[in-house]
Amino acid sequence: MAATMKDIARRTGLGLATISSYFNGGNVREKNRIKIEEAIEELHYEVNEVARGLKTNATKTIGVVIPELNNTFCAEIITGMEDVLRSHGYATIVCDCRTDKKLEREAIEFLIRRRVDGVINMPVDEEGNHLKKFQKTGKPIVLIDRKIQGISCDSVLVDNEKAAEDAVRQFIERGHRYIGIIGGPKGIFTAQERMAGYYRALEKAGIPVRESLICHGDYTIQGGVRSLEELVQKNPDMTAVFVTNYEMTMGAMIGVNELGIQIPEQLSVIGFDNLQFARACNPKLTIVSQPTDGIAREVARIMLEHLENGKKESEEFFTEKLQTEIIEGKSVNTLK
Amino acid sequence: MAATMKDIARRTGLGLATISSYFNGGNVREKNRIKIEEAIEELHYEVNEVARGLKTNATKTIGVVIPELNNTFCAEIITGMEDVLRSHGYATIVCDCRTDKKLEREAIEFLIRRRVDGVINMPVDEEGNHLKKFQKTGKPIVLIDRKIQGISCDSVLVDNEKAAEDAVRQFIERGHRYIGIIGGPKGIFTAQERMAGYYRALEKAGIPVRESLICHGDYTIQGGVRSLEELVQKNPDMTAVFVTNYEMTMGAMIGVNELGIQIPEQLSVIGFDNLQFARACNPKLTIVSQPTDGIAREVARIMLEHLENGKKESEEFFTEKLQTEIIEGKSVNTLK
Repeated sequence: MAATMKDIARRTGLGLATISSYFNGGNVREKNRIKIEEAIEELHYEVNEVARGLKTNATKTIGVVIPELNNTFCAEIITGMEDVLRSHGYATIVCDCRTDKKLEREAIEFLIRRRVDGVINMPVDEEGNHLKKFQKTGKPIVLIDRKIQGISCDSVLVDNEKAAEDAVRQFIERGHRYIGIIGGPKGIFTAQERMAGYYRALEKAGIPVRESLICHGDYTIQGGVRSLEELVQKNPDMTAVFVTNYEMTMGAMIGVNELGIQIPEQLSVIGFDNLQFARACNPKLTIVSQPTDGIAREVARIMLEHLENGKKESEEFFTEKLQTEIIEGKSVNTLK
Repeated sequence: MAATMKDIARRTGLGLATISSYFNGGNVREKNRIKIEEAIEELHYEVNEVARGLKTNATKTIGVVIPELNNTFCAEIITGMEDVLRSHGYATIVCDCRTDKKLEREAIEFLIRRRVDGVINMPVDEEGNHLKKFQKTGKPIVLIDRKIQGISCDSVLVDNEKAAEDAVRQFIERGHRYIGIIGGPKGIFTAQERMAGYYRALEKAGIPVRESLICHGDYTIQGGVRSLEELVQKNPDMTAVFVTNYEMTMGAMIGVNELGIQIPEQLSVIGFDNLQFARACNPKLTIVSQPTDGIAREVARIMLEHLENGKKESEEFFTEKLQTEIIEGKSVNTLK
């Protein structure tokens, strides 16, 4: 016969309230905590989290919906968040929606049925229709990397406009005028911000925008290859190109290699994310680096604040904006 | 008031057994399936998966425990498996144990409390102590990429010994004699197999083994950098190096760049996994490519076979061995 919380109370001589508090992550004196853990060990007590979920209406599970698990930026953030959440007793169910709005909506429906306690989402659907039903449950939502008009919730972003402006300004300061950009999909918030930074840098330097230097990729490796080829073909005078996410950066390097273009002599390149990849490139690539660890910790912290301290809905929602940095390689040429 | 299965039965005129069969993934005639789905829509019926889990003792959740989420091989396999499992109504809880036996054991304990229906594991603990308790539940375990003595269960592997032998033979056929290897941790099954392939290729060619050409890395990028530097320093006559996983391959390319070594003139390199990274290298890297999609599909298929067709314990356990291939780049020099 399986041990119950009452058995633990009897064995330890502590009240049921203390035992319950222990299991629900509340404050328990160190002395009592040790007693309870000894009793758990002796009685082979096992928490049935499923049954507990039904009783407390908390499943201690967080749903995470991201566009691509097979994307380094997403994978790094998930790893970091999971560490923090697990150390607080929360499991994560990760759903990869393959950058597909329909799959994203289905993932949220699935998580609603699973009665998750909160949702962390790097949204694909820029209108947020997929989140409206979950929002009615009153449970917390934290968005990563993107904001959605019409969904009131916390979000953790990086300052993407400044990131792009810094990169393009670096080209301009080294004498470049014909600067291409491989941007992201038009509907994506981060892509719009990065594009705005490109425009702002050119504008401040008084350089006119040339449409043929602007290419919208799809944040995939293959999209990066195609975009690089297209920019090179359309702009024989292009001396520099800025690539706005990691996968397209890898794709652009593939394109550069396959076309036999010399970096930085024939083309200067600044990529995005993944310092290790940048170091493995020959020559070493200059990149914009996002604080993935910082994003992961912030997202987890905000979610836990909601779940454990019961942040009220009426309090103001929070938009945290983290800063990027440029890590210098040898892929930017100085023009005379 | 929330709708119940009875309401759906009343609305559709079908028996409760049919409705129940529908929700539990059984066979339901197409005509009836349509009726039920219309009723679900009209009645705003929502399955409470948590409550259902308690009743049927099935949570429709699979636990996945891997050494590193932030490892491309793992991430690709998870993405592929999740696709298949989700299309059959199963959620996955992914636990990243950071290549740490203690965290791995904790992850399995955590999944036992979560009452998962099965565990998919790429094990860190080569003795499998972490799995013994789960095995007593009688629920299925499928291992990826590694086998464990003493744990009877299915496993999906690649033929790692042959993969390594093929790579080293390619060097030998092009005239190399002083061939280094950056292997994995000694206790890891795949690392032992790849090392065995290295020995076998040398032995078949009658080339004596030189200990200083063998380096045991730790399957990380930084470990790859260090190992490459160490091999180069200890073996001034080394003309070729075989790197046995993706992260260390990236690390070796970083080491090569930072030491200013020309590939393939000064050093020939064959790496492991990730065709896109190989294409982004300058010159393009020759690699051993593992069938990650095939592994993912096989693992999911075997797990579903257990869960849905109730594969019996008495049946023989299954070890599937998939083949790798070498994808040619320009990183192997032919010596005169």
